[in-house]
Amino acid sequence: MTARDLGLPSRVPAPGLPERVTIWEVGPRDGLQNEDAVVPVEVKLEFLDRLADAGLTTVEATSFVHPKWVPQLADAEELLAGLTPRDGVRYPVLVPNERGLDRALAAGVRHIAIFASATETFANRNLNRTLDSQMAMFEPVVSRAVAEGLDVRGYVSMCWGDPWEGAVEPGAVVSVGRRLLDMGCSQLSLGDTIGVATAGHVAALVNAFTDAGTPVSALAVHFHDTYGQALANTVEALRHGVTTVDSSAGGLGGCPYAESATGNLATEDLVWCLDGLGVDTGVDLDKLADTSAWMATKLGRPSPSRVVRALRG
Amino acid sequence: MTARDLGLPSRVPAPGLPERVTIWEVGPRDGLQNEDAVVPVEVKLEFLDRLADAGLTTVEATSFVHPKWVPQLADAEELLAGLTPRDGVRYPVLVPNERGLDRALAAGVRHIAIFASATETFANRNLNRTLDSQMAMFEPVVSRAVAEGLDVRGYVSMCWGDPWEGAVEPGAVVSVGRRLLDMGCSQLSLGDTIGVATAGHVAALVNAFTDAGTPVSALAVHFHDTYGQALANTVEALRHGVTTVDSSAGGLGGCPYAESATGNLATEDLVWCLDGLGVDTGVDLDKLADTSAWMATKLGRPSPSRVVRALRG
Repeated sequence: MTARDLGLPSRVPAPGLPERVTIWEVGPRDGLQNEDAVVPVEVKLEFLDRLADAGLTTVEATSFVHPKWVPQLADAEELLAGLTPRDGVRYPVLVPNERGLDRALAAGVRHIAIFASATETFANRNLNRTLDSQMAMFEPVVSRAVAEGLDVRGYVSMCWGDPWEGAVEPGAVVSVGRRLLDMGCSQLSLGDTIGVATAGHVAALVNAFTDAGTPVSALAVHFHDTYGQALANTVEALRHGVTTVDSSAGGLGGCPYAESATGNLATEDLVWCLDGLGVDTGVDLDKLADTSAWMATKLGRPSPSRVVRALRG
Repeated sequence: MTARDLGLPSRVPAPGLPERVTIWEVGPRDGLQNEDAVVPVEVKLEFLDRLADAGLTTVEATSFVHPKWVPQLADAEELLAGLTPRDGVRYPVLVPNERGLDRALAAGVRHIAIFASATETFANRNLNRTLDSQMAMFEPVVSRAVAEGLDVRGYVSMCWGDPWEGAVEPGAVVSVGRRLLDMGCSQLSLGDTIGVATAGHVAALVNAFTDAGTPVSALAVHFHDTYGQALANTVEALRHGVTTVDSSAGGLGGCPYAESATGNLATEDLVWCLDGLGVDTGVDLDKLADTSAWMATKLGRPSPSRVVRALRG
């Protein structure tokens, strides 16, 4: 008998939380891009289908990054051609530059995401650009996408800490984020790329955005569990009004065997938490855990999600 | 360069948290008792010394459970005889019954803990007793210990869920807990033995105790990370006034390779969180991570603590 058969987790709401949270599922893109062994496109398509069956309504499907950099996602066109559209389910795609946008438009994509850095050092290391030239690169991507009627999300990485600069000031992140919103992004995903945020710092950044006039509905959070803080940080963000949370089915992208577990927050661990708190996500936890357990067999190793291991291990 | 060299985590307090938290370190007892390979007493003594060096002031040292049940802790007398007392550091010992109390008194122990169940089914399965006969068994242990001037902690297991009964009502836990306090226990440790609690349920139980007149200072919390909720639940308990938290150095007692990771909250992950929140614990995170990394080499497998793996992996 599992905890689910016994009706657990108990549903006991806590004050100050939103009634409903939208989960932005990043497993097929952010999760798989960290997997070395290339997953066949048919498996990816079944994965996308099963995630939607489990009730996820936003599933980041793939990326138009150059295949040289992310061979795992070199099948983006084939994947999107094979994807059956569903009412009420969005499949955003990461687009790094204008060439990527061309590919996305040719594939009929309606929702894209761009990936910016909050810090000079990471912009330099990741894109070989300054923050200003990063913005100059994204400007035509976003303006063309918006002109084509696409919805554009702006990822902002290193929002709480940077592996070269250390702590990142909220003001610096707000500055980058507001430029992306002004450019035409509809939403920011604030990423703790190296997992160093703690709850007070999370609250400070959300407050810094709202103090600067950004509606909290334009903010999503994206935590990594490198130091075990991802879920506690997420709950803190929800208490400050955030209602979109990024997570990865089965914790895909992390590795339970790696010395440093740098994975995304697992969607199942998030849904367990929110089910317990009475916050609606629309996600069927059992179907989702089945999906991640199935995907783990395809990848040949156990899921890093604690819920998946406890329920399906 | 590690995140620590860069001054991370950033110290950003959040409102509503205590200024100071006492960590009740359970690694040497609750952690090691789940390890199959018997650890030599000299290693345990070095472990205890290093934990105190790292700033932990309450370190549960061992147990006087019958060696047949927990062979790992069969060296309790030898361990306590070898332990150098330190000012300001307590070494409580688990005592299951009057025979255990006799052994503890003979060994000069000043702080003991007893281990009770919140549910009928677990009392029956674990102790082969009803809840009432469980209390009858503990009554002479606690009254004799108190008469001898000992401090007695009462562990209460299955406080949020039970593997046979499912959800556990706060009222049932309060009833058991108050009987233990009335008996003479100075503190309760509310245990989520199977890791199924979520934050709202945590708040409900703490509130149920305070509504019944129990001072929150008499409550500690003890979370397991089976479903990934341990740290989020701990932060919620702190917001409701709890200031004593149980955790296990290096997450000892869990296993990163096991299909179901049922371990205790890792002390390092807790200290990372509290350092970031500006809550004083008196613990030196770097010394503690060194200690857990050293212990992992003695056990021959990596620490389940995410912080230890990230900093020392």
